Amino acid sequence: MNKIHALKDVTAKLAAVAAGREKAELVIRDARLVNVNTGEIMEHTDIAVACGRVALVGDASHTTGKDTKVVGAAGMYAVPGFMDGHLHVESSMMNVREYAKTVIPHGTTAIFPDPHEIANVLGKKGVRFMADDAAATPLRVFTLMPSCVPAVPAFEDAGAAIGPDDVAEFMEMDDICGLGEMMNFPGVLSGDENVHKELYAALARDKTVTGHYSMPETGRGLNAYAASGIRCCHESVRREDALAKMRLGMYAQIREGSAWRDLHEVVKSVTENKIDTRFATLVSDDTHPDTLLSRGHMDHIVRRAVEEGVNPVAAIQMVTINVAQCYRMDRDLGSISPGKFADILLISDLAKADVRKVFINGVLAAEDNKLAVSIEKAVYPGFVKNTCHLKKPLTAEDFKIAAPDPSPSPAKTRVIEIIEARVGTYAREFDMKAENGFVPPDPSRDIALLAVVERHKATGTMGRGFVKGFGLKGGAVASTVAHDAHNLMIVGMNGTDMALAGNALAECGGGMAAARDGKILALLPLPIAGLLSEDEAPVIAEKVVKLDAAWKELGCGLESPFMTMALLPLAVLPELRLTNRGLIDTVNYRFTELFVKAAEAGRTAFIS
Amino acid sequence: MNKIHALKDVTAKLAAVAAGREKAELVIRDARLVNVNTGEIMEHTDIAVACGRVALVGDASHTTGKDTKVVGAAGMYAVPGFMDGHLHVESSMMNVREYAKTVIPHGTTAIFPDPHEIANVLGKKGVRFMADDAAATPLRVFTLMPSCVPAVPAFEDAGAAIGPDDVAEFMEMDDICGLGEMMNFPGVLSGDENVHKELYAALARDKTVTGHYSMPETGRGLNAYAASGIRCCHESVRREDALAKMRLGMYAQIREGSAWRDLHEVVKSVTENKIDTRFATLVSDDTHPDTLLSRGHMDHIVRRAVEEGVNPVAAIQMVTINVAQCYRMDRDLGSISPGKFADILLISDLAKADVRKVFINGVLAAEDNKLAVSIEKAVYPGFVKNTCHLKKPLTAEDFKIAAPDPSPSPAKTRVIEIIEARVGTYAREFDMKAENGFVPPDPSRDIALLAVVERHKATGTMGRGFVKGFGLKGGAVASTVAHDAHNLMIVGMNGTDMALAGNALAECGGGMAAARDGKILALLPLPIAGLLSEDEAPVIAEKVVKLDAAWKELGCGLESPFMTMALLPLAVLPELRLTNRGLIDTVNYRFTELFVKAAEAGRTAFIS
Repeated sequence: MNKIHALKDVTAKLAAVAAGREKAELVIRDARLVNVNTGEIMEHTDIAVACGRVALVGDASHTTGKDTKVVGAAGMYAVPGFMDGHLHVESSMMNVREYAKTVIPHGTTAIFPDPHEIANVLGKKGVRFMADDAAATPLRVFTLMPSCVPAVPAFEDAGAAIGPDDVAEFMEMDDICGLGEMMNFPGVLSGDENVHKELYAALARDKTVTGHYSMPETGRGLNAYAASGIRCCHESVRREDALAKMRLGMYAQIREGSAWRDLHEVVKSVTENKIDTRFATLVSDDTHPDTLLSRGHMDHIVRRAVEEGVNPVAAIQMVTINVAQCYRMDRDLGSISPGKFADILLISDLAKADVRKVFINGVLAAEDNKLAVSIEKAVYPGFVKNTCHLKKPLTAEDFKIAAPDPSPSPAKTRVIEIIEARVGTYAREFDMKAENGFVPPDPSRDIALLAVVERHKATGTMGRGFVKGFGLKGGAVASTVAHDAHNLMIVGMNGTDMALAGNALAECGGGMAAARDGKILALLPLPIAGLLSEDEAPVIAEKVVKLDAAWKELGCGLESPFMTMALLPLAVLPELRLTNRGLIDTVNYRFTELFVKAAEAGRTAFIS
Repeated sequence: MNKIHALKDVTAKLAAVAAGREKAELVIRDARLVNVNTGEIMEHTDIAVACGRVALVGDASHTTGKDTKVVGAAGMYAVPGFMDGHLHVESSMMNVREYAKTVIPHGTTAIFPDPHEIANVLGKKGVRFMADDAAATPLRVFTLMPSCVPAVPAFEDAGAAIGPDDVAEFMEMDDICGLGEMMNFPGVLSGDENVHKELYAALARDKTVTGHYSMPETGRGLNAYAASGIRCCHESVRREDALAKMRLGMYAQIREGSAWRDLHEVVKSVTENKIDTRFATLVSDDTHPDTLLSRGHMDHIVRRAVEEGVNPVAAIQMVTINVAQCYRMDRDLGSISPGKFADILLISDLAKADVRKVFINGVLAAEDNKLAVSIEKAVYPGFVKNTCHLKKPLTAEDFKIAAPDPSPSPAKTRVIEIIEARVGTYAREFDMKAENGFVPPDPSRDIALLAVVERHKATGTMGRGFVKGFGLKGGAVASTVAHDAHNLMIVGMNGTDMALAGNALAECGGGMAAARDGKILALLPLPIAGLLSEDEAPVIAEKVVKLDAAWKELGCGLESPFMTMALLPLAVLPELRLTNRGLIDTVNYRFTELFVKAAEAGRTAFIS
């Protein structure tokens, strides 16, 4: 991409172009400027660009020379490039280059990713890898240093850990713009020393601390969280959550991801209250490849906000100047104004946010939904690709669950019950019948085997349990996308297929696989950290479609079963979870036994 | 004052107070919160404070312990402390401590002064002196490094000069928050190397560059200026100037000073356009002691904005959060939100901005228009007080103007004609009659002698000329407040009184004096740099009243004659000016002769 010039280095050049002594490199003629500074639309406005920055907004005829590229924009809106203030690139299963190729044509010019998925696998090296890889794209990528890796240290084994010293080290780096979502809000509120050390490290370097406050409590807890210097939060699921945050001076990051589609509700914080909207922003958080390919990225979210009643100019402010002000980067970004980076979209229908042209740094980066620049395909280094380490190949024996001894018959067994399209689970208890000293799955009651195998350091540790709700009639599905430690998770109705699917992933460095009757039905290799593909987006999408078909073939009728599955090990969510260390009661935050002891049977949970 | 805590050091403490584990130091109970984040007024809101910062906004009952100071605010508005984003403390003739004592009771809690008057006398040492003196007050003072000292290097001799290296040196200092008003906009536009080096120094340290763009041209010139990284400007005198600046992403600093009362006109940029007002701020620029004492400071300006039709909450945003965002200090300042400094006003009538209580850093700093903290009176060091150096005492002979040789009679003479309440002058030509080889003043045509004596380095250089319009019948007035070089300026009808007034100032280290018939009528000593008093504000005001009376006694009917006089040497303003180096044609930016040569007579100027 074009060289990125710091403003300090080009003030005289920009002045010369604006004043007419030198000519612009690019002039966009006769646009309808969406002026996010004043909230106006200004007809018949030219934009002159030099050194990748806006030199002049107004009448640019005097800046146009024989070498100036002139782009006619008559009838089109000129809009600042869209910015996504909170997301995890890993959710797209694309590497950053492929992600950039996918989102730029949709008008995204800057993102603030928190690479905490890869950090759970590769630690600091993973964060640095993602930031470095991003530098090969024209997308402006402002990386946030993950704050909570692993998410729940005592309950699982991730591939790596990040602590206050690592945070302090990364805060010294220019391309690390702040601290990633501080999910440990209990730690913030309770004054946990390591948590506050991380806040300290970011604040000391005057960088931005981003939030994740998912409680409905907006009084003392939210105040404590905000008072700790946390500047934004994407976890509002009710309108009143977002409103409370904005009132406390936090940026509300209204989320519209593939699975968490909160905008419909949360944007009412803005549309139903006559408030100053400068603290409202829109973010994607987690977007899957099919959503990106079929609906788009921030353009889709802007469109959704407009559909929900937000004024189009205000919606655009929420993905431009408001985001820039959140990160205090508004000297360089967020508006089409003199001195700012020439990240400019031409849009034909504002409410539909249909992006026709995308300029980044004054260079045409996409046109008519196609990338107009080439992004070199990477040859990724071995250390990011060799992350799936099992102690030994899995066998059917590994998935046998020994009945309790002395064995009651039936054995009262704790079962995780999933809830479609929700992040929570129910902790259930079922009477399970032992056979030959082992407790098998029970397709008749939709109870499958579930296993989480440590896959980072080949320790051989493995958690085993049961899960209800996937609808599997047989076979098995495995995935190394298993939040947040991203161990190897396998669900299935028999040990042979489970071992087969798991081993297939171990062989290809991770990914997702489905198996039945000793055959692999579908395989999506994610060789980068077991999380990201090396393929192009359409290829990934095609493989995802095949996997979805395989799920259905196995009997599952859920919409996004991999997503639901991916959260089963995440011990910060209620009520029952399984990690490589075992079954966790996340209501009481403690390990629990798979088989209920007589004394406790039925004490806390529903009995089927 | 209370210790100022960086947020990084107190996150855990604030969280503990908000969460209820520790108690607040101060709780303001049951206020009507002016929430500048969302633009709402929130009834029955408590504010809990610890470590000088807001810990919680909402219901603070759980934060109130036996040692908590509780302030009932029922019926009163809680408003963030007022911030003045552009001003020169020197205009008040008060030292910074006295200035703080005066403005804090009016609700001002933070100022961004550009000490360029004292910098013209004392250079860097003067800037450091002002910043250090400010540290003795509870007022938050964010000093801007003057950018244009002297204002017009080729035409005058100031006491000091500030260049790019000095700027770079000061940008390293934590209490220097940016670059002072860049008055040399022609230099910005033309790409002047030193000017852009100063911009570079500020931008390289990520500090704010403040502006002064006084041309009515809002096209290529203003774009060039904005593109150079200049973030704000207080020089709009027409509504369209301010609107153009906001549209280009510059903060419009709408000015209401003692003499430059631009608000009535300029605020129409906001009231007559339905725009987002986040880029609108209110500033004082230059305020005289009588205005501060009789009308107030930012409270007065907020009141004026409301009178002109600005919504009170929006007006308050213009002196709080908008200013904080302009300087990108909104993590610490500008709103009453968790984590921010507890700079809080209690106001009984919002539209009238009548400030009843002022808290700075969580400490009651003023109540019922009286300071509630003590600010130690300074003993100022010698180097700031010994700045008035004449080569020798002045005598009547010094003010004799020799007639041209060969002497035409009458001699066609260039005369500066002042315009009441305006900063400009007219370049006039009058036929003046010589007597005994000298040209005397002419009271009958209201033409007085004018002299500017270099007073910094005792060089003995002196400019002489004539000025019309003060209405003096006799006597003389002298001042060392003479922009921007602040040499010793004397206007009078006879040399004896001129010498007397000038010598009186030289003896007391500068100030203002009026004399007649060999007697001093009034004297306002300004011993600090010849600009600032050591007295308390009421004493200064009293002396100013006496000086005003003396002006009237001498025949002058102008409203603020000292102000008009103070600008006579400022060679950036049209049309004719006098400095210690001589008469300057500021239309063509060149020195000119006092007496018109036959060939040029009447070529450019009006002849009386």
